[in-house]
Amino acid sequence: MEFAYSDRCLDFRERLLAFMDEHIYPAEAVYAKQMVESGDPHFDPPIMEELKAEAKSRGLWNLFHPDPEYGAGLTNADYAPLAEIMGRSAILAPEACNCSAPDTGNMEVFTRFGTDEHKEKWLEPLLDGTIRSAFAMTEPAVASSDATNIQMTMEADGDDFVLNGRKWWTSNALHPNCKVLIVMGKTDPNASTYAQQSMMVVPIDAPGVTVVRGLPVFGYQDREGHAEVLFENVRVPGKDVLAGVGAGFMIGQARLGPGRIHHCMRAIGMAERALELMCERASSRVAFGKPVAAQSNIQDWIAESRIDIEMARLLTLKAAWLMDTVGNKEARVEIAAIKVAAPNMALRIVDRAIQVHGGGGVSDDFPLASMYAHLRTLRLADGPDEVHKRTIARVELAPYRQDAKK
Amino acid sequence: MEFAYSDRCLDFRERLLAFMDEHIYPAEAVYAKQMVESGDPHFDPPIMEELKAEAKSRGLWNLFHPDPEYGAGLTNADYAPLAEIMGRSAILAPEACNCSAPDTGNMEVFTRFGTDEHKEKWLEPLLDGTIRSAFAMTEPAVASSDATNIQMTMEADGDDFVLNGRKWWTSNALHPNCKVLIVMGKTDPNASTYAQQSMMVVPIDAPGVTVVRGLPVFGYQDREGHAEVLFENVRVPGKDVLAGVGAGFMIGQARLGPGRIHHCMRAIGMAERALELMCERASSRVAFGKPVAAQSNIQDWIAESRIDIEMARLLTLKAAWLMDTVGNKEARVEIAAIKVAAPNMALRIVDRAIQVHGGGGVSDDFPLASMYAHLRTLRLADGPDEVHKRTIARVELAPYRQDAKK
Amino acid sequence: MEFAYSDRCLDFRERLLAFMDEHIYPAEAVYAKQMVESGDPHFDPPIMEELKAEAKSRGLWNLFHPDPEYGAGLTNADYAPLAEIMGRSAILAPEACNCSAPDTGNMEVFTRFGTDEHKEKWLEPLLDGTIRSAFAMTEPAVASSDATNIQMTMEADGDDFVLNGRKWWTSNALHPNCKVLIVMGKTDPNASTYAQQSMMVVPIDAPGVTVVRGLPVFGYQDREGHAEVLFENVRVPGKDVLAGVGAGFMIGQARLGPGRIHHCMRAIGMAERALELMCERASSRVAFGKPVAAQSNIQDWIAESRIDIEMARLLTLKAAWLMDTVGNKEARVEIAAIKVAAPNMALRIVDRAIQVHGGGGVSDDFPLASMYAHLRTLRLADGPDEVHKRTIARVELAPYRQDAKK
Amino acid sequence: MEFAYSDRCLDFRERLLAFMDEHIYPAEAVYAKQMVESGDPHFDPPIMEELKAEAKSRGLWNLFHPDPEYGAGLTNADYAPLAEIMGRSAILAPEACNCSAPDTGNMEVFTRFGTDEHKEKWLEPLLDGTIRSAFAMTEPAVASSDATNIQMTMEADGDDFVLNGRKWWTSNALHPNCKVLIVMGKTDPNASTYAQQSMMVVPIDAPGVTVVRGLPVFGYQDREGHAEVLFENVRVPGKDVLAGVGAGFMIGQARLGPGRIHHCMRAIGMAERALELMCERASSRVAFGKPVAAQSNIQDWIAESRIDIEMARLLTLKAAWLMDTVGNKEARVEIAAIKVAAPNMALRIVDRAIQVHGGGGVSDDFPLASMYAHLRTLRLADGPDEVHKRTIARVELAPYRQDAKK
Repeated sequence: MEFAYSDRCLDFRERLLAFMDEHIYPAEAVYAKQMVESGDPHFDPPIMEELKAEAKSRGLWNLFHPDPEYGAGLTNADYAPLAEIMGRSAILAPEACNCSAPDTGNMEVFTRFGTDEHKEKWLEPLLDGTIRSAFAMTEPAVASSDATNIQMTMEADGDDFVLNGRKWWTSNALHPNCKVLIVMGKTDPNASTYAQQSMMVVPIDAPGVTVVRGLPVFGYQDREGHAEVLFENVRVPGKDVLAGVGAGFMIGQARLGPGRIHHCMRAIGMAERALELMCERASSRVAFGKPVAAQSNIQDWIAESRIDIEMARLLTLKAAWLMDTVGNKEARVEIAAIKVAAPNMALRIVDRAIQVHGGGGVSDDFPLASMYAHLRTLRLADGPDEVHKRTIARVELAPYRQDAKK
Repeated sequence: MEFAYSDRCLDFRERLLAFMDEHIYPAEAVYAKQMVESGDPHFDPPIMEELKAEAKSRGLWNLFHPDPEYGAGLTNADYAPLAEIMGRSAILAPEACNCSAPDTGNMEVFTRFGTDEHKEKWLEPLLDGTIRSAFAMTEPAVASSDATNIQMTMEADGDDFVLNGRKWWTSNALHPNCKVLIVMGKTDPNASTYAQQSMMVVPIDAPGVTVVRGLPVFGYQDREGHAEVLFENVRVPGKDVLAGVGAGFMIGQARLGPGRIHHCMRAIGMAERALELMCERASSRVAFGKPVAAQSNIQDWIAESRIDIEMARLLTLKAAWLMDTVGNKEARVEIAAIKVAAPNMALRIVDRAIQVHGGGGVSDDFPLASMYAHLRTLRLADGPDEVHKRTIARVELAPYRQDAKK
Repeated sequence: MEFAYSDRCLDFRERLLAFMDEHIYPAEAVYAKQMVESGDPHFDPPIMEELKAEAKSRGLWNLFHPDPEYGAGLTNADYAPLAEIMGRSAILAPEACNCSAPDTGNMEVFTRFGTDEHKEKWLEPLLDGTIRSAFAMTEPAVASSDATNIQMTMEADGDDFVLNGRKWWTSNALHPNCKVLIVMGKTDPNASTYAQQSMMVVPIDAPGVTVVRGLPVFGYQDREGHAEVLFENVRVPGKDVLAGVGAGFMIGQARLGPGRIHHCMRAIGMAERALELMCERASSRVAFGKPVAAQSNIQDWIAESRIDIEMARLLTLKAAWLMDTVGNKEARVEIAAIKVAAPNMALRIVDRAIQVHGGGGVSDDFPLASMYAHLRTLRLADGPDEVHKRTIARVELAPYRQDAKK
Repeated sequence: MEFAYSDRCLDFRERLLAFMDEHIYPAEAVYAKQMVESGDPHFDPPIMEELKAEAKSRGLWNLFHPDPEYGAGLTNADYAPLAEIMGRSAILAPEACNCSAPDTGNMEVFTRFGTDEHKEKWLEPLLDGTIRSAFAMTEPAVASSDATNIQMTMEADGDDFVLNGRKWWTSNALHPNCKVLIVMGKTDPNASTYAQQSMMVVPIDAPGVTVVRGLPVFGYQDREGHAEVLFENVRVPGKDVLAGVGAGFMIGQARLGPGRIHHCMRAIGMAERALELMCERASSRVAFGKPVAAQSNIQDWIAESRIDIEMARLLTLKAAWLMDTVGNKEARVEIAAIKVAAPNMALRIVDRAIQVHGGGGVSDDFPLASMYAHLRTLRLADGPDEVHKRTIARVELAPYRQDAKK
């Protein structure tokens, strides 16, 4: 066993920490001001392009991409600690480093399953950060956690497919630079469970695509937007089916693993920042004759937060290491486990930090309420906690099945 | 022991439930539409005045006021179940029935401690629902949970007082009809702890009063607004000091008790509504071959929610009954207890309901995320949980103090 | 609403509290000494008979019995606060007052469903406290929470029935005075679900009855014993079938309600005593320069304990009041709710008290570890928490069933 | 990062697992029978000596000892997974492999701080498993978590020291083979905080040493015993002061680190076994028409248990690795963290397993109730959770201290 980060990881880590200190944290107030002044929740503020340029110049660009041809070429285990750091300023840092979801997953999909045309048309500008993309899977009318529920139809019509359906929580679709969607639907509802679905590439301005509205998250209209998108007779040429008809489920599984590592590590970064804010506030506020930090109940919160962060981080790092060494499938219990553990842990910590901040904690004077709201979505996105627990329990129970014993 | 509601309470309850069904719930969508279309978060939508007129015509007006000269003249125990019902649609029903905070507390203060002039100028239009009012106590720079921390100065200058300081979470101050503030500050920082403070009546348009900004709650800009308010050399005539110089703490205590009953019962109403939504959603969504409601983990959540609601309601009703029978001071443990128990209970239930709703739960398609955000503030408003627990523990520990035993 | 106890209840309460102070608490150490010196965990120590005589002479005898012909004739709501007080010294007080389970339930069953012979032979000496009885329902081989699982056969053979099966957790069966068992089994496995079972009266010395062993509870061998009992061809005459063949389920339901009130109120009494011990210990121990009671984390525990006790007590009292006013069936949600809420609450509080006591808390120098162990069984006895939550959820969900809506 | 165990660890692990399967698990019932038949809770059953001989013959002896001269010479990180396995049968395996507390700590102390005489007289037979030893630190009269509270006096008298005081929770002191105690007390109450205490070697049959009684853990009288020991004018020669007068605190710190790894890994082993039992029971019991394991609430418990075990294990392994690489002092936050995290985690899991086992869970038909009782002591032994959280919080808060900023 060896718990130290690799030298390669440590090198990036140092540089990323410097970038955070020198550019990202100072930019937070600038960003807030530019957004408010724009009066447009989906405005593209100048500071963001400046940050992107700076990150690029420092070689802190596309760190997520496992293929050295396209990015840093880091393993999951080496990238994970960097995702954590970016999570500390989750609105700015991931996009500044071109490492924000769902673009990261989409870039990986284009890399692995895209045609040369897809790479030229979509992957390259995505890697350059000049366009953004979205991923349309979840639907409002059904429990999408059960993938067989998906209702979007993708009917073959000659060489084309005709898409009809309604998606929501299509994140990034309201980003001013969003140009392309990867869309999941059913090409054959009568096929076997894992062969019913396909993924297709759809330009956001394709005829029949309507971005209906942006969904708020606890009152927040995010800049990138979480859109409800209507697909009415959207015609997609056969060449834009990714990895062939019926490959939707397989691609979904492939993109899920790394995405969960990224989400969980960013959640851990948020938890670390919340803990910092909690310590700072508790140390500077006085009540009943002493700093709040001198109260043992607050000290308990701080200690429990530290313990919980350490444990969640280790499990996430182990899941990343397993993905690197034995693959996503063998790591499925750990990947499910972090999906449950990390967001819940981070929510507990952010909630305690809010409590220590009093009224300030629920306002926008601190990033805590926003963190809470967005962390809360992670208990639902990519399947609710309950679906992941079900996965874990089924693996755990398998050896004890009465029929298995016979 | 007798757990049934009184006949008087039951009569109002029936009528209020009918008003909710016939007017309030149908108005929720209308209200949302009028607010969005206005483009102004502090807009006064026509539907609200219609609801107020309807409530007034049905005799469902000023139900909170314990004095029959000014309102329904109900005991706390009789009003509490009505506050719960209003809490089920907390944005509309309390204001429609002229029972919303902080106006209720302010009206009680004017009734008990106001001069004839105050009653004519402020109490009457408040009772009529033609103006709104705010209560300025909490300050951004200090832990306001310890009342001795308050920094606003109220310096005597001839017959007047000159106010300087900064308040925040001054709810209602951005309501288009808000006309008057009750302001807490220190007239004598050197007096004994409970005699340092005074409360004064300040028109919102008094020179030197600046409403700096509205604070969001999570991402919500509430219609009534939670304002940061700056007081710069605001001159208040001596006649507008409530109940005399140094009476601020006493008035604060007097208004706290009923306010907590109202807040807690509304929180219970929110929890009930969240439980209804959870049951409805769980019954209508299918995953893995059966309705979500058939899953025993969801059934556990539902059962725990029912148990927790019942317990919190009984404790709140008992606190109300104690206030009615032995007074606020004797009921202080119970009043502190409900302030901790009810919001935490409601948050747990709303959070489960969000989880059952999936992505819809964190959006505005259901009232759950908004409920969560606003319930979360109740763990901070009027003192954080920790201050109330401290109060309870000190009473509990009193007989065991080593010096007490000697 | 009226939360005060009735005068009749208050009168008994005062007298019972005096009996506790003057006799029960001082007897605890005497009892412990007599038990240890006997070297027999099922010894009948002299102090117990002295306490019984004292309670009888004070009119604190058979307080549980709702029929004034046989006992105090109190309502459930009036008896509940007395059960709480007895729970404070749960090993001594209930038996001293002839109010201990399962004798109480058995006496009620004999009263309502017994023949004159049963009353003379079993009920009278039970009411006199000269014999004890047990109730044999739970079985080791199946999940008894699902009553249809019960496997004991009761086969008709002429006018008799022949019983075969194995029971466990037959409490009291190792009590030196135990003379009679009420036994649940199946007379007709093919009847409809609620008509399969019967209850029969079986002397403990009937041929074929073997008390196999006493089951420990977390290492404790209780004086009354929780026995595994083997029934091999035990012949029971038809006259000893209670309320007729097939009435077993009905009798079971009838005895359950009051029993749960008693168990829950005793649990609340244990929680109160644990809280007292916690306060006393925290006030008398010093660590890091101040009494443990001055630490805010311990104060939080104390406050949360007070809040939780108050809520659980109110719910239990309401359930009792509902049983008195609308009957067991209408009160079934509340009865299920307290069965979940009260033991879990008490366990949390006793656990905190153990923590405050350090090593002493897990030993027998304080009653806390024993309380914990026995409270833990309440989450299983009469059905595990999960079964009761299932009951509550089904009632809550009933209006939302998709078929119900049609 | 590298999460795989080392080859050396894996080799021992395989052999230890085989020993568990072939000898330890089958011996559990034999042990229980021999103990019951002996009628003596402190009996030394023949099976134990057989197991010790077998372990020795397999080279699974003194695995804990870091010095290859005395034992396996494993690092903490390599030994930790073996301690976990032994924890699965915590009553038999650790003693069978001569790896049970407090002997392990005592052997380390003798190795590092003992004289040649100590090594010959005590260390060698301890390493051979022919004698046992105890560690007398905790005292009944004070909060021992604050080491400055310790009251035992060790007064110099010529070349000797005279010990007076009362200890409890002196584990092993009732073991039939226990021959020696290491005793902590104050040689100089006026010295600086960390120089007041000394540790001395005292034969258990020294004049003035009285083993007063064995303390039960919940209702369990453990075979090795947790003794209250009275020291009355016990004379100790100067040569039996370990590492010099005033070195008590330093030795205590040195022994603590590895001991906590061992305790926590054994707790994790217990949790794994409880999870196995839970899965097995849930799979074999049927209620309401399906196996209990098919219920999603039970599946949630299983999944949460798996997640929690993984996280606690990783943190404990990391703490071990830190001790190996940077030393106990640098690892103090992690060592404190696992002391809180592992026992609490294991208690939650064992409690769930008890719930799934119904009445069997609290009896001795399964090892769960005993596990629970003994795990509960770990939240108190070596300092309660609250002391360790305090340590963690102080480190976390250090950078924010207002005076530190100046």
